[in-house]
Amino acid sequence: MTNSEIRYVRSLKDKKTRAETGEFVVESEKLVLEAISSGFEVKLICYCGENADARISSHPAAQAVDTKTMERISLLSSPSPALAVVGMPDASSAKEIVALAADPDALCLALDGVRDPGNLGTIVRIADWFGIDAVLVSKDTVELYNPKTIQSTMGSIFRKKVIYCDLTEAAKAFTAAGAPVYGTFLDGEDIYGQKLERHALVVMGSESFGIRDYLAGSVTKRLFIPPYPAGGSGCESLNVSAATAVVCSEFRRFY
Amino acid sequence: MTNSEIRYVRSLKDKKTRAETGEFVVESEKLVLEAISSGFEVKLICYCGENADARISSHPAAQAVDTKTMERISLLSSPSPALAVVGMPDASSAKEIVALAADPDALCLALDGVRDPGNLGTIVRIADWFGIDAVLVSKDTVELYNPKTIQSTMGSIFRKKVIYCDLTEAAKAFTAAGAPVYGTFLDGEDIYGQKLERHALVVMGSESFGIRDYLAGSVTKRLFIPPYPAGGSGCESLNVSAATAVVCSEFRRFY
Repeated sequence: MTNSEIRYVRSLKDKKTRAETGEFVVESEKLVLEAISSGFEVKLICYCGENADARISSHPAAQAVDTKTMERISLLSSPSPALAVVGMPDASSAKEIVALAADPDALCLALDGVRDPGNLGTIVRIADWFGIDAVLVSKDTVELYNPKTIQSTMGSIFRKKVIYCDLTEAAKAFTAAGAPVYGTFLDGEDIYGQKLERHALVVMGSESFGIRDYLAGSVTKRLFIPPYPAGGSGCESLNVSAATAVVCSEFRRFY
Repeated sequence: MTNSEIRYVRSLKDKKTRAETGEFVVESEKLVLEAISSGFEVKLICYCGENADARISSHPAAQAVDTKTMERISLLSSPSPALAVVGMPDASSAKEIVALAADPDALCLALDGVRDPGNLGTIVRIADWFGIDAVLVSKDTVELYNPKTIQSTMGSIFRKKVIYCDLTEAAKAFTAAGAPVYGTFLDGEDIYGQKLERHALVVMGSESFGIRDYLAGSVTKRLFIPPYPAGGSGCESLNVSAATAVVCSEFRRFY
């Protein structure tokens, strides 16, 4: 591996470089294998050791490197034996959101300003598990290609569509298609008592601000995950990824 | 604030010092307020600025410090305006677990070897929201007083009992009391189709190993959160805190 290649891989730890190049890094054998079997373009693979999975070592973009080099290029405190540079897919168009909204089978999530990379990654993984059709996120949501986000997706980043967009426009498209726009609020109705529609957009708020005012008016049905016992213990809220898991489960337990 | 006090607060970032002294640090105005209103002993409070909440500035253990000092003692990259040193409660006894197991209203969680501080903290917060009576954790579970765990609990650490113990003994106590021991496994039964008992122990596995063999035999009812659609997308599992949120919600939606 040349020094300029090493510098290039390292430069991808900066968000700005990722945006300029349209490339990002995934680490761990599992994620590299997921990248290879996905439709994403794998630009470079670095692996250590003689026991690498053959799908890695025989990949046309693969290079064997020594552990010292891996330590230099890895962003992890304990480098894993494989790393890949992957091209980002093309950004989605507004048309795609309209098509999703019009699909009577589509259940989509919308995240309003989630800031924590671990939460975004965990939610993408939840969306993958529960077969959510796409995760729409406000433009000020944390970057999807942040290394912490990617690690938290555990590979779901390669299967689940995440679209940065104007969420009020997305909500309008669902409403125009006759689908409800759900959102969780502290003054919403007990989710357990609802007949939830299969075709819908479900808005989740951010860690600090919940669903912000600019978007709250686009929600047509306010939901609430009740604490136990009624009235709660003083705990103010669930973490956004925990709440998303509960909400997705509630939608899927009936379909 | 004296230099030796500063050194003392800083020393509490080491797990070993926390264990030796039985003290830990919480940061942010919210967590300091939660500490004050809890039954925990607050040993020292440091706060910055003239706009501190009166419950903080008037506390007998409170000291005003300048922002430079706060930067020196804080473990956060962006220090918050308040920090407290808090004493750990006494460790729970085996008797307490037997009493929990015998309580016909008790629903407890058991975590088998959870390694990620954020997951443990998020699960304590979930347990608080859903009124789980206690969180039993295997002795090799990540430390509760790890700063990342504490921050993730968002204050639930002051309300929810977390007990490090032998989980096979805990499972035995629930079984002896006639209560089921649930656990989530990839080959478990669809959780949505079950009549879940209110009085139970619910075991959740770790990020990498799930529920380990030593404990799996103590589970009397194996559950599974089904992916959507049936068969799934290739996503191997939910994150343990997301799965815990779904499972707790399933227990509480009927009671």
